Amino acid sequence: MIRRYIYGNPFITEAVVKCIEKENNALPYFVTEKKINDNGEEYLKFSLNMKRNDMIFGLGENVGGINKRGKEFISYCTDESGHNEDKRSLYAAHNFILYKGENNFGLFVDTPGKVVWDLGFTDSNLLTISLSDVNANIYLIENCSAANPCKDENRFGNDNLESSSEYEKIVSEFRELIGKSYVPPFWALGYIQSRWGYNEPKDFKYILEEYRKNNIPIDAFCMDIDYMEEYEDFTVNKKFFPDFEGFVSEMKNEGVHLIPIIDAGVKIKEGYKTYEEGVESEYFCKEENGKNFVVGVWPGKTHMPDFLNRKASEWFGQSYKFLIDKGIDGFWNDMNEPATFYSEQGLKKAWEYVLSFKDKELDIYNVFNLRGVFNSVANNPEDHKLFYHDLTETLKDMRKEIAEGKATGYDLEDIKRCENFLEKTENGFRVRHDKVHNVFGFNMTKAAMQEFEKLSSEKILLFSRASYIGMHRYGGIWTGDNCSLWGHLLMNVKMMPSLNMCGFLYSGADTGGFGGHCQKELMERWIAFSIFTPLFRNHAAWDTREQELFRFGDIEEFAGIIRLRYRLLPYIYEEYMKAVENNKCLFKPLFFEYDSDERVYEIEDQLLYGDSLMITPVVCENARGRMVYLPEEMLFVKFKGDVVVENKVMEKGDHYIKVEVDEVPLFIRKGKELKLCESAKCTKELDMNNLTTIAFK
Amino acid sequence: MIRRYIYGNPFITEAVVKCIEKENNALPYFVTEKKINDNGEEYLKFSLNMKRNDMIFGLGENVGGINKRGKEFISYCTDESGHNEDKRSLYAAHNFILYKGENNFGLFVDTPGKVVWDLGFTDSNLLTISLSDVNANIYLIENCSAANPCKDENRFGNDNLESSSEYEKIVSEFRELIGKSYVPPFWALGYIQSRWGYNEPKDFKYILEEYRKNNIPIDAFCMDIDYMEEYEDFTVNKKFFPDFEGFVSEMKNEGVHLIPIIDAGVKIKEGYKTYEEGVESEYFCKEENGKNFVVGVWPGKTHMPDFLNRKASEWFGQSYKFLIDKGIDGFWNDMNEPATFYSEQGLKKAWEYVLSFKDKELDIYNVFNLRGVFNSVANNPEDHKLFYHDLTETLKDMRKEIAEGKATGYDLEDIKRCENFLEKTENGFRVRHDKVHNVFGFNMTKAAMQEFEKLSSEKILLFSRASYIGMHRYGGIWTGDNCSLWGHLLMNVKMMPSLNMCGFLYSGADTGGFGGHCQKELMERWIAFSIFTPLFRNHAAWDTREQELFRFGDIEEFAGIIRLRYRLLPYIYEEYMKAVENNKCLFKPLFFEYDSDERVYEIEDQLLYGDSLMITPVVCENARGRMVYLPEEMLFVKFKGDVVVENKVMEKGDHYIKVEVDEVPLFIRKGKELKLCESAKCTKELDMNNLTTIAFK
Repeated sequence: MIRRYIYGNPFITEAVVKCIEKENNALPYFVTEKKINDNGEEYLKFSLNMKRNDMIFGLGENVGGINKRGKEFISYCTDESGHNEDKRSLYAAHNFILYKGENNFGLFVDTPGKVVWDLGFTDSNLLTISLSDVNANIYLIENCSAANPCKDENRFGNDNLESSSEYEKIVSEFRELIGKSYVPPFWALGYIQSRWGYNEPKDFKYILEEYRKNNIPIDAFCMDIDYMEEYEDFTVNKKFFPDFEGFVSEMKNEGVHLIPIIDAGVKIKEGYKTYEEGVESEYFCKEENGKNFVVGVWPGKTHMPDFLNRKASEWFGQSYKFLIDKGIDGFWNDMNEPATFYSEQGLKKAWEYVLSFKDKELDIYNVFNLRGVFNSVANNPEDHKLFYHDLTETLKDMRKEIAEGKATGYDLEDIKRCENFLEKTENGFRVRHDKVHNVFGFNMTKAAMQEFEKLSSEKILLFSRASYIGMHRYGGIWTGDNCSLWGHLLMNVKMMPSLNMCGFLYSGADTGGFGGHCQKELMERWIAFSIFTPLFRNHAAWDTREQELFRFGDIEEFAGIIRLRYRLLPYIYEEYMKAVENNKCLFKPLFFEYDSDERVYEIEDQLLYGDSLMITPVVCENARGRMVYLPEEMLFVKFKGDVVVENKVMEKGDHYIKVEVDEVPLFIRKGKELKLCESAKCTKELDMNNLTTIAFK
Repeated sequence: MIRRYIYGNPFITEAVVKCIEKENNALPYFVTEKKINDNGEEYLKFSLNMKRNDMIFGLGENVGGINKRGKEFISYCTDESGHNEDKRSLYAAHNFILYKGENNFGLFVDTPGKVVWDLGFTDSNLLTISLSDVNANIYLIENCSAANPCKDENRFGNDNLESSSEYEKIVSEFRELIGKSYVPPFWALGYIQSRWGYNEPKDFKYILEEYRKNNIPIDAFCMDIDYMEEYEDFTVNKKFFPDFEGFVSEMKNEGVHLIPIIDAGVKIKEGYKTYEEGVESEYFCKEENGKNFVVGVWPGKTHMPDFLNRKASEWFGQSYKFLIDKGIDGFWNDMNEPATFYSEQGLKKAWEYVLSFKDKELDIYNVFNLRGVFNSVANNPEDHKLFYHDLTETLKDMRKEIAEGKATGYDLEDIKRCENFLEKTENGFRVRHDKVHNVFGFNMTKAAMQEFEKLSSEKILLFSRASYIGMHRYGGIWTGDNCSLWGHLLMNVKMMPSLNMCGFLYSGADTGGFGGHCQKELMERWIAFSIFTPLFRNHAAWDTREQELFRFGDIEEFAGIIRLRYRLLPYIYEEYMKAVENNKCLFKPLFFEYDSDERVYEIEDQLLYGDSLMITPVVCENARGRMVYLPEEMLFVKFKGDVVVENKVMEKGDHYIKVEVDEVPLFIRKGKELKLCESAKCTKELDMNNLTTIAFK
């Protein structure tokens, strides 16, 4: 059962697709307070006293465990390439928690501004949620076990909802509220190779050749910022790609798709089409005084398209046509937190500050200040107070949708509340960016996908770096700029079920790590996990060790694991579609199914994967195996590359299993089966009609 | 058996205390090559082809596992407060590895310059060791099993050397070569509270009061840079401490020792005694032109005492008298890698570079360059080429020692080789800092300890941040500026046996983490491990959450664990002394004893601790227990605080044990026992004659 609590005048984030009636009673479990922040502004704070064994799950893209209790998180989309296990904000804002306590419940805090989740960090027994203002829709999901309202006759596949735990039912009901997850084209479940630094056709062709030669399947290349003309969106570098269309087509004939990057910022340059159009139609974010806001990103100075303005969004989405017309059928939207290297205002201040130190002796205090100056210019939240979004056309459009019966998730009352939230202008409504920061990337990706449906009859692949709940309907996400660290592999493992709870099914991490230099063994263990993530991309920064799968020696070890990914695709695809249709998770913590077994609540390095499997990745260096806990009897299947080398029933309890670096362990649950096809060099050559089954009856 | 291979003209580092004859055959196992670096200078490179299951242990203070295979490390003492699992250099240079392969051996690369250890990072099957020049003493230790030359009739305690594994024998023989480890005063095994930011007596007194009130034992406070006058060594801030001597004495009456910090840099200030003396006697490091080298550290501009000059060292060591005379009986030497905030030359270059960007548009490339400029000024290895050490008096002194029969570890031939290594000057010999960088901190600490023995009849506590093998004879080390991360707790666990192999027994990490904000649970799990580390200090930076043990609530949970430390002290002290006397490790990987059990080689989160115990710390957040592997039947003893709550024999194999946040699990080995005293508020009130024994006969 879902209850909606409305506080103040919430902004319409478009996170939900159901318009739930307002609940008039107070939000249970929590103490609700209005507090005053340092700027004298009111904000909402919710507090709950926790029992020692209460647990908190969810929050999507964040560091830490599946159980996030004890840490503090700040939902505020941030470009954090150097993040560690104590980083409070990553690229996304996923404000859903699943609470396990005396009463289990789900809670979705739907507000586009910053939200601070103190999950027992400051006081180990106190959960507090602090908003940045007094406006929010808060959804409480509970008592799903008794009412079982998520039952839906039209579900896909052999849904075992009847036997689901209360946790799973809460999540499913929340997922129904926020709408069905994005389904990518089938080829996007293949292996994707990427690197910041592939410049010319020959770079791609060389790698493809090595993959083919070494029998490593591959379905796509990402194209990082290098492919563009001076980092301008919707351009192609003519020097490197004199015949881009021909190159796209040549690769497609090989079964390989190209996935160019699109950045949020549009370069300020006279004569550059996208810039000229944006200025002409007033589609860029503006300063308070109406001047287009200037921000430094890859191409130098840029303007930010106002993705919250539906007219601007439509225009930006249509701009992808330039590349779609050239045969492109996949994109990744980047830098859309938005990431900023500097604002003109911030840079000016930094220079003033720096120059004030010139010729001074640097002692303990000012040496640290000076060191931080230029760093703090980048991604400075203060800059978010310098520009505005124009909601005038968006609200008109929303009213029209309501009138036409096409609106989902909001009604006229919501529109009125939203208008109260916004700042009235001469012509309509605007809002300062910091107040709606978390839906910027969401709206960029929504803009693109909504136009893709008009521009192409084919399904287009799309994934984004920044996201907010609701964006899961329009595209996938990768988990941003991570590093070549064992800790980031484990983080990837623990993040997947949390992302799934928030609706993000098509997702995965930069396998091998984006920053830092990857070790051979780390790459092997990481691909042995990533073969299960729907988005499976190997990506790295230009200044790191080359990490294509043939770079480390013992190439067949890598090749075999990738071929296993392709063998697993019938299962992965079926389970993905079931998860979409039934609003379920593809990656599940063990307690989603084995909720009566106390042991499993603290097991975070084993996951249920679809209905049939439990996966147990090796995430420690120099290990030759690992301990696994079986909550019931299961069939252990070990692959060496894509070949089964062990297959035995193991009883409930703790076991040590040997897992060499080229091996992948799997467990098939009782009464379940795993269907495998033969591998092929790319997805379009897979024979999905000719399957082998490993069953544990 | 130890063989010494002499390459070129090695510097005398004073790491070893035995003068081993030169081996004329080539170093076995390795291919030895002379290579040319980018500057056209020759250097030595040693390569060894590894089998897939070969392992590499040792390297003391470094990140990564006990088995370090697959990573790259650079021995070059570096101030790295933000280190992560991929950091190549920490504060120390510990060039000893224990190799497990077809032939097991120990290898000590004794050279004071940079050494790059590529342990299968670049090529997973190739170990390479690259020196920065062609001069080194290399010691190979092997075949200890057969010859057992480390047998020593004068050993302390019930040494079970006869039953030692080959690994342990190799390490013991190496440890004999480098001399017996430092023994601190007994009180230094008590709990030490520290924080950058305790300013005045009332700060210390308030904390002591809280500790007493909450029944948390404590033996000492560290005093960070705040106690000094303008960060000047050998001064006390008179405003905060009008009667410093009285305060020291008042605390000592309470059983609490004060441990002030001493930094490597001496503030340039007319009228400041240490500065004036150093300039007068020419005891500071000089630039090529003879001018005293200027480097910015805490107090602003400073000079670096030339610790490699024995005359300067003696003077600096004598300077501690100022504080010893006031009742101080413990010190920590810091910033002695040396850490540098800037050199005048480096800062000038940085300004020139920064100013060249003024008024330019910042694009992709220069924005990153600009961001890094002032950061790269700090701890810049280029600065190490700007200053020199004067070895003239040191070599005279060494020759005198040889003549008097007092020299250990070198003879006249070594002196001659060393003179060939050095640069000849008008008056004697000098050497550019970068060539001997790794022995700077070692010599600061040696300087202090050698004078302490003249200045005080009592044993003085001393530990250092930077170190080189050999320094373990003169003081302990803490493992530098770490962070409040679960990963850093695990790093602490894995580092202890590696440090012990290199002779550093009195050591430990900043418990709770120096940087970052500590969670309650992390602090509880961390103290539950640190109660075993001889140096047990809770330390944090000024800008982090307060982390004294009464700050997190549930204070009795913390208090009980600290009281258990005190109950364990009879065992800790006895095992510490046995390890010193027998050149053994206090913390041992399981394979040191159970070398025939293949499983134990990859277990890195369980350690043998002394002769009787196996410890199994919980290092994961939100865990209520952990898996343990018993290589043989053992007695499981679980403490809740300092009280035994469980005590049962467990059989060989894998077990899940419950361990709540206020509990400490231990395993007593077969035929062994654990002696416990009653707890007390500080070590001097312990009754060591009245012991309880838990035995597993």
